[in-house]
Amino acid sequence: MTDTVPGEAAHDHHDMDAGAHGYISDKQRYLNRLRRVEGQVRGIQRMVEEEQYCIDILTQISALSSALENVALGLLDDHLKHCVVDAAARGGDDAAVKLKEASDAIARLVKA
Amino acid sequence: MTDTVPGEAAHDHHDMDAGAHGYISDKQRYLNRLRRVEGQVRGIQRMVEEEQYCIDILTQISALSSALENVALGLLDDHLKHCVVDAAARGGDDAAVKLKEASDAIARLVKA
Amino acid sequence: MTDTVPGEAAHDHHDMDAGAHGYISDKQRYLNRLRRVEGQVRGIQRMVEEEQYCIDILTQISALSSALENVALGLLDDHLKHCVVDAAARGGDDAAVKLKEASDAIARLVKA
Amino acid sequence: MTDTVPGEAAHDHHDMDAGAHGYISDKQRYLNRLRRVEGQVRGIQRMVEEEQYCIDILTQISALSSALENVALGLLDDHLKHCVVDAAARGGDDAAVKLKEASDAIARLVKA
Repeated sequence: MTDTVPGEAAHDHHDMDAGAHGYISDKQRYLNRLRRVEGQVRGIQRMVEEEQYCIDILTQISALSSALENVALGLLDDHLKHCVVDAAARGGDDAAVKLKEASDAIARLVKA
Repeated sequence: MTDTVPGEAAHDHHDMDAGAHGYISDKQRYLNRLRRVEGQVRGIQRMVEEEQYCIDILTQISALSSALENVALGLLDDHLKHCVVDAAARGGDDAAVKLKEASDAIARLVKA
Repeated sequence: MTDTVPGEAAHDHHDMDAGAHGYISDKQRYLNRLRRVEGQVRGIQRMVEEEQYCIDILTQISALSSALENVALGLLDDHLKHCVVDAAARGGDDAAVKLKEASDAIARLVKA
Repeated sequence: MTDTVPGEAAHDHHDMDAGAHGYISDKQRYLNRLRRVEGQVRGIQRMVEEEQYCIDILTQISALSSALENVALGLLDDHLKHCVVDAAARGGDDAAVKLKEASDAIARLVKA
């Protein structure tokens, strides 16, 4: 599936030393956080199923949004630290491509 | 579990005519949307598991945040239309309590 | 100018008792907060003029966004408490119109 | 005043070739956008002064927030392209300091 992912052409992290992968070292931590996020979504489904009070459901959705935001900020920080800095250190056009991608991703997060 | 939910004391929708429940009529639609949200979370877990490109993962997280935001805005609109308007029509302190709750929920969404 | 403002047709607060106006009582407080906001904008202009450090300018923009958000949440709370509750208490179509407007405004704030 | 600004110690753009300054080339464009922002704030003050309809004021505040957000995203993009990439290309601890600052600024924007 990897070869059909948009943006894939511009990235080469599979060709790089494992130590340079943005989130490898923390992969298990990201997966744990995303499993908690999944649990939160199921909790919210249950609240709707049981017709719990709207305001209480909204509180849980806000907590879930913040948790997701923190996952995104962590991934972005890792990405800047690794892929973007590596590209900048190597020089060339790749750094510009990676920065454009990163800025676009930041704009989507800020506006989401 | 319903009786231990915070805010429950202030709401009485289980005592009211079913037609007045904020999201009853659309309950299945909310559940469908939340099941899609759960599928999106699992898709993101898989992307991290497969070490897909960070930027592509961030794009999916932004899409997920927007989907959640729309669920929250729908629930809030239903809540204002039903619980808050009913409380206002009945008059008394309950309207003030419900509005305070709604404004606090809106602030949490705006800041989340 | 008031008569050309969009949404004006749906609102009647100029016809109502002054005590029912959403923000009249706090008008001076809102004006003071908006004057501080204006001062913050001019401070940011000066930082750009003097080519101060980008990160410091971004910090000031974040503070300004939060200040604006709080003004908006205050106005929205006043609006719900007064215009929307009054319309709901009177009953009729006006309540539905006002709620639609309020929900749309909330969505714009959440997405802004 | 520049020498007392937080974060100033970590940045050296005044010592660098003018071409490397993040926003120099676009400085006038940023100032023009910030002057429009200032005009928007004064327009909102006038709306409150004239007790215009809350919802219309909220619409203007949402537009202002988006304008500010775009200024911030532009500055951040310039900062990443110039200060951060230059630091990364030079290598050393400065790149790590700059990335930490940038990630913190992004988090403040996303949460603002």
